[in-house]
Amino acid sequence: MQPSSSGAGAITAAVLVIGDEILSGRTLDSNTGYIARYLAELGVDLREARVVPDVTEEIVAALNALRGRYTYVFTTGGIGPTHDDITADAVAQAFGVSIDEDPRAIAALLERIPAGKLNAARRRMARIPAGAELVDNPVSKAPGFMIGNVIVMAGVPIIMQAMLDAVAPRLRTGAKVLVETVEAGAIPEGRYADALADIAAAHGGVSIGSYPSFSSAGARNQIVLRSRDAALLTRAAQAVRALVDGLVSDNAPG
Amino acid sequence: MQPSSSGAGAITAAVLVIGDEILSGRTLDSNTGYIARYLAELGVDLREARVVPDVTEEIVAALNALRGRYTYVFTTGGIGPTHDDITADAVAQAFGVSIDEDPRAIAALLERIPAGKLNAARRRMARIPAGAELVDNPVSKAPGFMIGNVIVMAGVPIIMQAMLDAVAPRLRTGAKVLVETVEAGAIPEGRYADALADIAAAHGGVSIGSYPSFSSAGARNQIVLRSRDAALLTRAAQAVRALVDGLVSDNAPG
Repeated sequence: MQPSSSGAGAITAAVLVIGDEILSGRTLDSNTGYIARYLAELGVDLREARVVPDVTEEIVAALNALRGRYTYVFTTGGIGPTHDDITADAVAQAFGVSIDEDPRAIAALLERIPAGKLNAARRRMARIPAGAELVDNPVSKAPGFMIGNVIVMAGVPIIMQAMLDAVAPRLRTGAKVLVETVEAGAIPEGRYADALADIAAAHGGVSIGSYPSFSSAGARNQIVLRSRDAALLTRAAQAVRALVDGLVSDNAPG
Repeated sequence: MQPSSSGAGAITAAVLVIGDEILSGRTLDSNTGYIARYLAELGVDLREARVVPDVTEEIVAALNALRGRYTYVFTTGGIGPTHDDITADAVAQAFGVSIDEDPRAIAALLERIPAGKLNAARRRMARIPAGAELVDNPVSKAPGFMIGNVIVMAGVPIIMQAMLDAVAPRLRTGAKVLVETVEAGAIPEGRYADALADIAAAHGGVSIGSYPSFSSAGARNQIVLRSRDAALLTRAAQAVRALVDGLVSDNAPG
């Protein structure tokens, strides 16, 4: 469950991954996980992620659904020079604003590309919706941008990561969610689930999840507690540790 | 862009990942990429993916949005024995059906868990919405299920993968999308983007994407063509190869 910060005042976010290459299975999306960890450090709650294809109406519909629900929406992908890079135009359409070559973006491109080689395709990377602020791209210069509460970033991970660093100082941030992990080892989830539910019910401000994993070494369970209230988190974690310590692994998997 | 199979007759799918642990950044979602590649082999077009938290109304809303749009919806996560495992109940709610302990699921659990240890938490894993068919779990026995066009699977990758194998024979499948990849090496995207757009426009039944990547060895671009029409794909790939062969890498990055 989401931490109790779900209430008023929480800074929330969604990620919108734009890219056929993710949906076809060609490329593994590592950006969402990176953004999730990055935002957690900033005290921003990532609440949803979506992957949509390179289809204008899909991008527009997802953007408009997400930007109304969350403090921020971070998009990745689709801002390069090729015909399948349609994100900037889709964002302009979603916001109902015009889009044109931005002199600031052209200036950024000219830091890397000689004027004589700034052809039509490359100039596409300078198309920025009206009213957007640029987000620097120190890697390859073609900028991202922020318009309203939407931050538009590249899909290439090292560029996306640099853009996230560039935009982070402009974001509203929250109190960081504190995390405690209790190792339940090979104790089957089914042995502690009922008692864990009681602990969760008794500690309303703490989100508690139980996460099994399997490897050649066998099953391993971890109980993860998350809260912005340090004292409450400590009390809940103590209760969970007492529960786990009181159990001895049996042979019934769960 | 999506292959031209977007039209009538295409078998489509969405993935719905249910799990706070993905959104918090604790766990990297590898299931979506696995399912994407798996469905591509079956000729099923993955069109969308979403990650939502362990919150009933979020799961219900996403399920109802997706199951009306695509041939199939594959969910992962939230079917274990702990209090944060709420997927089965959310699916029942989305379909407006009752949910109860399923004797077939109890029988499956009893293959692994002695009757005397089948406590309330473990019995939760046998709660199956009315009308659903079970999906076998050879790894840890607690089953997934299929109801209508929704396939509900575990979040643990090795279990999810086994469930996908179990359900695949029941799915309608399509013609596999054929893929050709043309290596553009270090040729900047900006040098071929205009001509590539022309090729894309001239080969309507072929989806063409250009994908840059960066490593310590420098930039590397790949042009990926996808189609269900082998002859058309070959012609488009020939045109792209001719384009790439005609270019010599210059020093202007793009």
